[in-house]
Amino acid sequence: MKIKIINPNTTASMTAKIGAAARAVARPGTEILAVSPAMGPVSIESHYDEALAVPGLLQEIAAGERAGVDGYVIACFGDPGLDAARELARAPVVGIAQAAMHLASLVGSSFSVVTTLSRTKGQAWHLAERYGMKRFCANVRACELPVLELEQPGSNARRRILDECRRALDEDGSDALVLGCAGMADLCQDLAQALGVPVVDGVTAAVQLVESLATLGLRTSKRGELAAPPGKPMRGLLQPFTLPSPDLRAA
Amino acid sequence: MKIKIINPNTTASMTAKIGAAARAVARPGTEILAVSPAMGPVSIESHYDEALAVPGLLQEIAAGERAGVDGYVIACFGDPGLDAARELARAPVVGIAQAAMHLASLVGSSFSVVTTLSRTKGQAWHLAERYGMKRFCANVRACELPVLELEQPGSNARRRILDECRRALDEDGSDALVLGCAGMADLCQDLAQALGVPVVDGVTAAVQLVESLATLGLRTSKRGELAAPPGKPMRGLLQPFTLPSPDLRAA
Amino acid sequence: MKIKIINPNTTASMTAKIGAAARAVARPGTEILAVSPAMGPVSIESHYDEALAVPGLLQEIAAGERAGVDGYVIACFGDPGLDAARELARAPVVGIAQAAMHLASLVGSSFSVVTTLSRTKGQAWHLAERYGMKRFCANVRACELPVLELEQPGSNARRRILDECRRALDEDGSDALVLGCAGMADLCQDLAQALGVPVVDGVTAAVQLVESLATLGLRTSKRGELAAPPGKPMRGLLQPFTLPSPDLRAA
Amino acid sequence: MKIKIINPNTTASMTAKIGAAARAVARPGTEILAVSPAMGPVSIESHYDEALAVPGLLQEIAAGERAGVDGYVIACFGDPGLDAARELARAPVVGIAQAAMHLASLVGSSFSVVTTLSRTKGQAWHLAERYGMKRFCANVRACELPVLELEQPGSNARRRILDECRRALDEDGSDALVLGCAGMADLCQDLAQALGVPVVDGVTAAVQLVESLATLGLRTSKRGELAAPPGKPMRGLLQPFTLPSPDLRAA
Amino acid sequence: MKIKIINPNTTASMTAKIGAAARAVARPGTEILAVSPAMGPVSIESHYDEALAVPGLLQEIAAGERAGVDGYVIACFGDPGLDAARELARAPVVGIAQAAMHLASLVGSSFSVVTTLSRTKGQAWHLAERYGMKRFCANVRACELPVLELEQPGSNARRRILDECRRALDEDGSDALVLGCAGMADLCQDLAQALGVPVVDGVTAAVQLVESLATLGLRTSKRGELAAPPGKPMRGLLQPFTLPSPDLRAA
Amino acid sequence: MKIKIINPNTTASMTAKIGAAARAVARPGTEILAVSPAMGPVSIESHYDEALAVPGLLQEIAAGERAGVDGYVIACFGDPGLDAARELARAPVVGIAQAAMHLASLVGSSFSVVTTLSRTKGQAWHLAERYGMKRFCANVRACELPVLELEQPGSNARRRILDECRRALDEDGSDALVLGCAGMADLCQDLAQALGVPVVDGVTAAVQLVESLATLGLRTSKRGELAAPPGKPMRGLLQPFTLPSPDLRAA
Repeated sequence: MKIKIINPNTTASMTAKIGAAARAVARPGTEILAVSPAMGPVSIESHYDEALAVPGLLQEIAAGERAGVDGYVIACFGDPGLDAARELARAPVVGIAQAAMHLASLVGSSFSVVTTLSRTKGQAWHLAERYGMKRFCANVRACELPVLELEQPGSNARRRILDECRRALDEDGSDALVLGCAGMADLCQDLAQALGVPVVDGVTAAVQLVESLATLGLRTSKRGELAAPPGKPMRGLLQPFTLPSPDLRAA
Repeated sequence: MKIKIINPNTTASMTAKIGAAARAVARPGTEILAVSPAMGPVSIESHYDEALAVPGLLQEIAAGERAGVDGYVIACFGDPGLDAARELARAPVVGIAQAAMHLASLVGSSFSVVTTLSRTKGQAWHLAERYGMKRFCANVRACELPVLELEQPGSNARRRILDECRRALDEDGSDALVLGCAGMADLCQDLAQALGVPVVDGVTAAVQLVESLATLGLRTSKRGELAAPPGKPMRGLLQPFTLPSPDLRAA
Repeated sequence: MKIKIINPNTTASMTAKIGAAARAVARPGTEILAVSPAMGPVSIESHYDEALAVPGLLQEIAAGERAGVDGYVIACFGDPGLDAARELARAPVVGIAQAAMHLASLVGSSFSVVTTLSRTKGQAWHLAERYGMKRFCANVRACELPVLELEQPGSNARRRILDECRRALDEDGSDALVLGCAGMADLCQDLAQALGVPVVDGVTAAVQLVESLATLGLRTSKRGELAAPPGKPMRGLLQPFTLPSPDLRAA
Repeated sequence: MKIKIINPNTTASMTAKIGAAARAVARPGTEILAVSPAMGPVSIESHYDEALAVPGLLQEIAAGERAGVDGYVIACFGDPGLDAARELARAPVVGIAQAAMHLASLVGSSFSVVTTLSRTKGQAWHLAERYGMKRFCANVRACELPVLELEQPGSNARRRILDECRRALDEDGSDALVLGCAGMADLCQDLAQALGVPVVDGVTAAVQLVESLATLGLRTSKRGELAAPPGKPMRGLLQPFTLPSPDLRAA
Repeated sequence: MKIKIINPNTTASMTAKIGAAARAVARPGTEILAVSPAMGPVSIESHYDEALAVPGLLQEIAAGERAGVDGYVIACFGDPGLDAARELARAPVVGIAQAAMHLASLVGSSFSVVTTLSRTKGQAWHLAERYGMKRFCANVRACELPVLELEQPGSNARRRILDECRRALDEDGSDALVLGCAGMADLCQDLAQALGVPVVDGVTAAVQLVESLATLGLRTSKRGELAAPPGKPMRGLLQPFTLPSPDLRAA
Repeated sequence: MKIKIINPNTTASMTAKIGAAARAVARPGTEILAVSPAMGPVSIESHYDEALAVPGLLQEIAAGERAGVDGYVIACFGDPGLDAARELARAPVVGIAQAAMHLASLVGSSFSVVTTLSRTKGQAWHLAERYGMKRFCANVRACELPVLELEQPGSNARRRILDECRRALDEDGSDALVLGCAGMADLCQDLAQALGVPVVDGVTAAVQLVESLATLGLRTSKRGELAAPPGKPMRGLLQPFTLPSPDLRAA
């Protein structure tokens, strides 16, 4: 089985870390392709960043479909471009916020999300609502860490995340934790051990869910909202994103 | 990895069918234990049946914990006893309605549930709400099939389920289907092929989710509501269910 | 009119206290039958305890139907087995959490629940949602009192409950209180006087509601979800719970 | 116990009918005072009618408080002026829509409301939401009967209501019915017999609830939103509604 | 265009202030008519006050319709009588809570309401729910200022409101503010400057919305719930509110 | 006042039509700038189209900010890029779905949306939820018209839209209509006249709302989620979208 993990930002070190985390949990027969798009922001910390990350992400989905990929993971906690990606793909597509929230709801009675910057908390709540997970989400907390600080060896990122996790358990009444950034994937095991509660990282959670869906033959429904998008011209800089009409594609 | 699948009713032929469906999708290294409880109803078609299925189910969970099981599936679409089972187990516990609804929400924009008897529709809606899946649930439909008719070789169960699935897609605006009974597990592939949309069976979905949780080391949180239940005497017929106090258990 | 109050735990002193509270408010013509089941836990403090309390409770409902009881109260704040009980009974069945929340919503703009152990707060919230009372429920608070400590004469239970009630009024913005355990029934009047706001005990509230329903001839609907459960064999230890098929019952 | 039932419209024949229905279910010791206000519309079929029914209703509440009434029923299905009435009264106040919906939720899994004119359906839904009863309300249906036609002996009101109730059970999936007008109180028993499901009339339901609250000593909370309104001048035609300041009232 | 702003209380100084605020933002061609009703409370601080403000308000709407007014503003933060007013008017009617919440939701991700007395907070929440604005409302806060203190030149109202706004931004996580009383209209600009976030006053917001609706030819729908109320007699003191039957009105 | 209306698709004839509709309702002093982005799809009929419309849209917002624009309209019924646009802009930004739903909720008790293709209905429902307008949205209906067919003179688009509007009023119980595509702006008046209920077009509605916000000095809050996005490199094809860091921008 081939799973493509798209880190929607263009920072290679983070993509490598994400790929490693994915491979550590993938089933023996699974090939993990971890990529960054050819275009877009170096990190995603705003709606603006998210919006600019989507075209490159979609390019990777389209390439994946041509290459016969069995499933996709969108490895940014804002799950950018998820609906558009699901339109393009016949294979299943799962976002890491989606995956982490789903799995957290299965092992605890409620979870707290610990994320990077406060300004992204609104998006986390929005996703929780869209996925039906708001009722399990006790709180979304930020440690005011810029995303790329997670990539810096000497930073005290781990300490600050651990502290915020402790506050979450003490103050939110939750009994599980969700890490709110793909860049935290490598801290997950360590935090779980320190805290004694389930700590869910979205990258590894999403790998499991995509493998699960692919094993069961569950692919994105092409009957309604998520059918292949109508073919039509794209203009200007984005001309390369022009889709042929569906009949051409079928051919 | 050892996964215990508990068919909460006491009909062995259904347990066998469920076990076969589970083994067909389990990972190479996974051992599937499919059991029925030693006590309880031959099929579950009412709140009364559910209530009386729970003690036997809990006995199987307790036995599983002693045997070092890595995860549990409750294989009845009413997910009876889920919260109590999660209290008893350190390993993860997933219900098949829960699993099916979660996975269906990942591959379609909304799903219809096709179940057995009308009188169980309320419970399906109730579970959809509890799991946060109500927003994805376009409808719950019954084909007025008693559960055990699914076990009878000559019945026209497959035809009636297929017809109801077709009506669901035509009338509900959904683009995915969830099968509302463990006894339908063997029909899933066939229905998916006939209908051309994702059809999710809870037994296989739950096996995947439990394997996923176990692989990630995600176990039921023991911090709050789902902590081990306080030890105390049980009286009368249920005396065998007496739990030792937690300190004894830890010893 | 005959009202049967089932304390689903098997502690006789609590049953006696509940019966006394019920009789103190029942109408002149009402006969109060306060019973404990023949089997089950000595107190109910977990989902496990709840699940094991239900068979004995259902046995009492079935016996009540044979004896022509006019209505039932389930006297544990988790309202265990309510739906199954309503299937068995033609007479109305009311849980004490249900009753207390309904009446509290009629005399205040919002209420706080003060209950025993933190681990039961989730169930109280769940019931509030099911009954439509979540919008009135400002908070659920625990005083970390084990249920049976309420039965011990020298305990400082009253003081701790009163203190938690005071905190509720100060911090939750609520203007009414709901006592979250049948074992607190005897404290209700006293607390109301000390606090100067409505304090609702579920046992007395449920007695009133059942008398009200019975007076109006309102019995559990037998048209859909709550119709009599299908007759079928129960196996093993629970064989005594086997129901005859409905046609036999009608005879 | 003295219960005052205020029919907020000024049609005496309806008030008499309401009073009779109330007396038929009241407890032996209860005195039922059924009144119409001294001012306002002859029937209530719009938000405008409701608004103009409220001053007269409040006058009756104020008079009731001076007379030591133990509880109030607002006998119009729009429950006009309920919050203002609860501010004025120390005794409990219950609206008939409120009472009917609460009791219906105790005997069925969902109910349909059958009311008079389509234009009032919005208000019924609004009340269902406010009372937390929306989740139980399968539908609100109108038979396009003007309220006062219910008072005309030769009208075919009963037939049209019965037909609409039948449609409700067939099409809405509900298993209980709520009558959406105080003027239907006299039809309730007859409809219940014809339909074989619980049919709840708000007048009798509210009498039971008010008696219940009064028996339990549960009075409107005076701690927050429902405290006595601040005294202040009213000008013009409404000058008689001037309230003294609270200290004067206490005196 | 003629816009009629009805201050539902009978305090002329507040009406003058409201009129001035409205004129300061109205379009060049707009004539602002600011009035108080001929009857009712001098300030609105309870459900009782609201209820008694409505008849006078409706009289002003009826007069406005006869005078060909193009739109109405109800200038009290409880939006009293809004539905009844919309029935009477063909022109659009907007309440100031409604207007302020709508506009605040367009410029921030969530808002806090800062109002006068705590006892009115319930009504603000209720309106937020009715208008669909609850999801944007982070909190409703009171500064415990009686309404008429806003009219007293020497009061420290501005300081207390500013302090409460600061606390709202610090504690509620909101990024916009809504002023919860028409009497605060004159403070809006000043507060916005001091706080550096959008501060929305309902009076000026409602003027803009009504001008917008009128410009677009959007008038209150007369098809269903908001159609003209049925004509019928009003009795007693309220006899002047008798509506002719609709056919007479059309003539 | 300068209002910039961005038609996020790249079809000039539609942009011209939108501009004309906007100018027809703008205030005398308002300058309407109607533009299409320099890149992106010729019409927006899928999540994929939406995603690729956003970069060009954001470029127009950035240009608008440099030119001192007072407010923005996003003139596609999916409101693509709204949150990102609000981050970039200090001036207010309003989407046409947002505007139309808000205004429709002020003149009716509920509305139906009539849009182009069925596959876009999910997005309309999603926006209704995000804006708090779901409770007013009775239905979303499609006439299966591709967007660009609205631009073809000889098409029977008007007839099909009118027919769907009629069905909406007959079947949905709504009393107002919302047009679900910017390309329908020119039909609005005509449909309103034919149908006799309020018909709201988002383009003209959004112009009014943006003028309203600008007049009141209400600009996008820069305190939290909508603060200017952090500056950072964009790579590849999207390199031109690189934002300087905030301090450079302030200079």
